[in-house]
Amino acid sequence: MDADAPIGLIAGRGALPIEVVEEARRRGRRVVCVDIFEADPALQRVADAYYAVRLGDLGGIIEAFRRHGVREVVLAGKVDKLPALRRVRLDAHGEAVARRTPDYRDTSIVGAFLAVLETSGFEVGHQARYLGHLVPGPGVLSPRAPSEAEAADIQAGLRFASRIAALDIGQAVAVRNGTVVAVEAAEGTDEMIRRAGVLSAGVVVVKVSRPQQDPRYDLPVVGPATITALGEARGTALAVEAGRTLVLERDRVVAAAADADLALVAVAAAARDADV
Amino acid sequence: MDADAPIGLIAGRGALPIEVVEEARRRGRRVVCVDIFEADPALQRVADAYYAVRLGDLGGIIEAFRRHGVREVVLAGKVDKLPALRRVRLDAHGEAVARRTPDYRDTSIVGAFLAVLETSGFEVGHQARYLGHLVPGPGVLSPRAPSEAEAADIQAGLRFASRIAALDIGQAVAVRNGTVVAVEAAEGTDEMIRRAGVLSAGVVVVKVSRPQQDPRYDLPVVGPATITALGEARGTALAVEAGRTLVLERDRVVAAAADADLALVAVAAAARDADV
Repeated sequence: MDADAPIGLIAGRGALPIEVVEEARRRGRRVVCVDIFEADPALQRVADAYYAVRLGDLGGIIEAFRRHGVREVVLAGKVDKLPALRRVRLDAHGEAVARRTPDYRDTSIVGAFLAVLETSGFEVGHQARYLGHLVPGPGVLSPRAPSEAEAADIQAGLRFASRIAALDIGQAVAVRNGTVVAVEAAEGTDEMIRRAGVLSAGVVVVKVSRPQQDPRYDLPVVGPATITALGEARGTALAVEAGRTLVLERDRVVAAAADADLALVAVAAAARDADV
Repeated sequence: MDADAPIGLIAGRGALPIEVVEEARRRGRRVVCVDIFEADPALQRVADAYYAVRLGDLGGIIEAFRRHGVREVVLAGKVDKLPALRRVRLDAHGEAVARRTPDYRDTSIVGAFLAVLETSGFEVGHQARYLGHLVPGPGVLSPRAPSEAEAADIQAGLRFASRIAALDIGQAVAVRNGTVVAVEAAEGTDEMIRRAGVLSAGVVVVKVSRPQQDPRYDLPVVGPATITALGEARGTALAVEAGRTLVLERDRVVAAAADADLALVAVAAAARDADV
């Protein structure tokens, strides 16, 4: 890897792309940012170069990176699948991706997209390469630890969520007294949490990675909005996987958990895998 | 079984209890009905005896049945778990059920409830004993058969729904182009269908039985409301398991499917089991 060459950042919605730029800059790297889906406008200020490229215009992305001598590419930020699919217009490279895609699963689409980037000469790096500072180790992150009942629901939730994730359905479940109240599929974690709150107070939410997770783009993410949704849903605890989850704005997350008296815990992934 | 003794019917919400009474009467049996949760008021007219008993008052149920010499008991109708759990008040028998219940899963609660009934001397019959006329064999029930794309999504949905059901999470999923759009948990099938419709047009819904299904109370049910929900959600097909599903008001269901141009199909359960 040429440490003088800039990093290419493919940016979606949310705070992660900014985090990548800041960490890369701390390491003395320049960043060429391509906004593919509603990226934070602040990126125009912090990145060394910035392009807005329509989602299907993969040729535009490749051209922007080549212009700046990018070799190493990272992905960060959220691309909401359903709005994105409605909005996409495919160029010739995009058509190539579509032809390679066996179905419309997230992993199939992104996998085909990354394959085209890599055959075009770019190296797509692991997502945590410039985001390691956001990945918690095992332990209780909030002031309050889970109660015994919450810990039991967290264990149950880990088993259910692991199986849901293994089926490539979603990555999160809400559990109460050993019963699954809600399962995340296409609606996303925060919507699932809201629904669980309507059905039952006192749920515990568990969010895990996929066993077939691609570390180039697929780490689960939680942030202040997750905690807000859980508090409003009268949930009491959130568990994520240590070493495999990006926690955005951890100070705000912990403060919000404290305010809502939520237990927030990062569970060793090994504990889960042994159980699957 | 004493064919002169009346049948004891434990009735919840919906049309099934009426169906049981009518079929039992066609076979010359009298019916003693105990309404435990929002049962149809028409039961007071069609049953030979009728009692409204609070959900946790198992002693009241046993007493009513003994008064009429009931030996054979059947369950029919829906008890919405979450409202029911909020409303329940336990008598001494109810407390016995609660002590036997290892967790709050539907199957655990009802299993303990049936165990107390059976140790009290009642035989709890299979649910289809007086409902066999509502169980479809394999085949297309609607005027329109599934398209090739719908048939592929039905197969995918059977695989996903079987696994969800095996985890005792729920019994239905909504699928589009091989991707799971929504999974049913505590919210029920119709709510899940509505959510799927907000996320994506053109979903296929598959509803299956649990592998550990208890034939005394656990057959999946679809009816006109399911078809209405699917039509409003812009879904295009519904698949259920042949021989294991109760189809309520089949004439209305088929007419509603025809009106909405939905494909409605009962799939051989063996086809699913081979795939799990």
